[in-house]
Amino acid sequence: MPAATLDEVVALCKRRGLIFPASEIYGGIANTYDYGHYGVLLKRNVSDLWWKAMIQERDDIVALDSAIIQHPRTWEASGHLAGFSDPLVQCLGKCKRRFRLDTLQEEAEARGEDPETVKCPVCGGDLTEPRAFNLMFQTTIGPVQEDGSTVFLRPETAQGIFLDFKTTLSFARKKPPFGIAQIGKSFRNEITPANFIFRTLEFEQMEMEFFVPPDEAQQWYEYWCQERLNWYTRLGIRSENLRLRPHDPEELSHYSSGTSDVEYLYAGTWRELEGVANRGNFDLTQHSEYSGKNLEYKDPQTGEGYLPHVIEPAAGLGRTVLALLCDAYDEDEIGGEKRTVLRLHPSVAPVKVAVLPLLRKDGHPEKAREIYLELRKRMSTEYDEGGNIGKRYRRQDEIGTPYAVTVDHQTLEDGTVTLRDRDSLTQERIPVEGIADELEGRVTNRT
Amino acid sequence: MPAATLDEVVALCKRRGLIFPASEIYGGIANTYDYGHYGVLLKRNVSDLWWKAMIQERDDIVALDSAIIQHPRTWEASGHLAGFSDPLVQCLGKCKRRFRLDTLQEEAEARGEDPETVKCPVCGGDLTEPRAFNLMFQTTIGPVQEDGSTVFLRPETAQGIFLDFKTTLSFARKKPPFGIAQIGKSFRNEITPANFIFRTLEFEQMEMEFFVPPDEAQQWYEYWCQERLNWYTRLGIRSENLRLRPHDPEELSHYSSGTSDVEYLYAGTWRELEGVANRGNFDLTQHSEYSGKNLEYKDPQTGEGYLPHVIEPAAGLGRTVLALLCDAYDEDEIGGEKRTVLRLHPSVAPVKVAVLPLLRKDGHPEKAREIYLELRKRMSTEYDEGGNIGKRYRRQDEIGTPYAVTVDHQTLEDGTVTLRDRDSLTQERIPVEGIADELEGRVTNRT
Repeated sequence: MPAATLDEVVALCKRRGLIFPASEIYGGIANTYDYGHYGVLLKRNVSDLWWKAMIQERDDIVALDSAIIQHPRTWEASGHLAGFSDPLVQCLGKCKRRFRLDTLQEEAEARGEDPETVKCPVCGGDLTEPRAFNLMFQTTIGPVQEDGSTVFLRPETAQGIFLDFKTTLSFARKKPPFGIAQIGKSFRNEITPANFIFRTLEFEQMEMEFFVPPDEAQQWYEYWCQERLNWYTRLGIRSENLRLRPHDPEELSHYSSGTSDVEYLYAGTWRELEGVANRGNFDLTQHSEYSGKNLEYKDPQTGEGYLPHVIEPAAGLGRTVLALLCDAYDEDEIGGEKRTVLRLHPSVAPVKVAVLPLLRKDGHPEKAREIYLELRKRMSTEYDEGGNIGKRYRRQDEIGTPYAVTVDHQTLEDGTVTLRDRDSLTQERIPVEGIADELEGRVTNRT
Repeated sequence: MPAATLDEVVALCKRRGLIFPASEIYGGIANTYDYGHYGVLLKRNVSDLWWKAMIQERDDIVALDSAIIQHPRTWEASGHLAGFSDPLVQCLGKCKRRFRLDTLQEEAEARGEDPETVKCPVCGGDLTEPRAFNLMFQTTIGPVQEDGSTVFLRPETAQGIFLDFKTTLSFARKKPPFGIAQIGKSFRNEITPANFIFRTLEFEQMEMEFFVPPDEAQQWYEYWCQERLNWYTRLGIRSENLRLRPHDPEELSHYSSGTSDVEYLYAGTWRELEGVANRGNFDLTQHSEYSGKNLEYKDPQTGEGYLPHVIEPAAGLGRTVLALLCDAYDEDEIGGEKRTVLRLHPSVAPVKVAVLPLLRKDGHPEKAREIYLELRKRMSTEYDEGGNIGKRYRRQDEIGTPYAVTVDHQTLEDGTVTLRDRDSLTQERIPVEGIADELEGRVTNRT
């Protein structure tokens, strides 16, 4: 199965309404997308599985949902206010466009040209000196833009976790090693064109900060690298399209003693899906200093206090959705006709089962509706009676529905239906009685 | 059971870390809160139940997740840019504070004073003339604040639905009457102090726009008023604390031919939990005009196009969480000792079951861990071996855990455990075998 091109995936997303440009009737906003019905269902399944793996099925991680607008000192302490910026240049020639200098230089190098003498790629004009452009969106609380009321939309969810570390310790009855996890939106004022939903102005993060005694940091770092890589394979992504890439020493943030990216082979290019970083005690140290609060954990046995070190697996929800779509996209032929199919793992598929009456008469629709009403209490289910049965199967294949239940004349005689498998195309007859339990067992990822 | 005071609820939220002020180590931000572990679990249960009732178990509503930052023309068309404002006054005396004029006037009236001659309530100074202060947070896309790059954080999720109405029609294979629903954050630059999480700068909405043929608008409006009221009773809120209050004619928005609030009796005061509005075709008309796009639905039978009318049930997630907490909060006595208990419906309770070894020896912990590991695959479960059994029950009562499973010496003999009920305090012995199915049946809201 050859890798899908990004164009094929984007076209499918648009055709079936999974993901499409936001504000389209007003001409759109660059790097901003809306998720339609099947896209939302897919995205929710992914975040629910992360939640289950990282919170529900662990007793060493607790949940948090911190605010998007935090106190502005947060970003002084974290370093984002001073350092979270891109080097920006503007064309002095005709077009006056703005570019990221680092991107232009990388492109020049790739062409074998001197990165030091780059020109405007649009009109060839000279460029200004680079200016640091902060990627945080800025806004104002209260009626006038006065001192102290300037705030920022968080560029990452992680800092909210550090701010609440001590509060969480006070009620969670946990001690290091333990983690705090959350899912939420972050915002970055990106000025460069991105690849579909790979880099967007607003994006959902699934982040966890795991607080450990300093001498256990390296072992937990290795544990989380492996654990997070495994999670993607459990979502059904093919292992040959996943890899763990340790950062080179020069790539590392100054505070990190080790970072690895979980990468996915998006349409032939390895790109970051998730970063797992050993952040040391950098963040807690900074917030202790800036807030004047003692953020140490006090060991009740030894009586000694220390700032835990932190291992951070930070995943992007949109990137995971995109990886799943690229990995699942396939085209084949059935009976001489081309079929587009998303070979999604049942646990992430937007719709788990479609219930189809073979005919629009002879009691088929009534019986099919009855089964549909039963199934939808337990899982995402569709009822479809429009068009011939082959066309209805194709519609479900294209959105990745793993199973189709078809009601036919035999159903009314012996209480069985056909269960059609999206991938093997086999049809087996199973009893209507107990069908919800049977299907729930097949579509639930309980590994 | 007397109504809980807000102070009691706030104190419990703080003590057990459900909800607490955001950015607390930096002194906080007014009207902004973070949700801790149990708070997040409670909030997720509520939004999942809304999702199930409004999307999964209906085939006339589809899901959407639209961006927070939409094209700025959106808010010109919707009327928010011109009209979504509070009348603001500033003290000309010593204190220079700012107030909402309408709030001051209401307070003056309540005291039997002339609302036309209000003074500063802090220092008695004169006030400026009122100035309209827009409640939308403003920010800038791109590196400089140039024409066209000013954007707003959405003050409601609804407009994203209207923008995507035509796109959704094109892939959803639906026709009026049908709805589009989404859950997401909205932002309002509130300057008046609020009651805990009742009114916050950022808040999660659960909104649905139901598009109907114009002559069916009134009947669907009545349907949704009743349906939404019923939903809150299904969450376990006592019906005597819920009511449906139709707006007086002078309260209605100019475009609405009918709006009713679902109200909850928060600590003795009726306040809005959700608004159900008949919005006519106002929004689609506006967006058609501003975008120049034809947003009509074309009836395939008659060939005629029309703008559907819209019924909007708009619920607040934080307000629902607060109503649930107020409604569930109770204090009683067990064996002469005071107990704080949240009598939450099992479907919304943050933790469904606690698994407790009676003793920390004799194989109790091992057996209890085994049961815990099995249960947590299916539902939110806690294991607790710290302190005497009564103290452990109290900890679970306080966060509303409906069931506790206790492993004792008899468990190792006959394979049964005690199942303790939070409200009736009864203890029954049930077999360990099949315990996950048994408990899942008890805690799932499948009505």
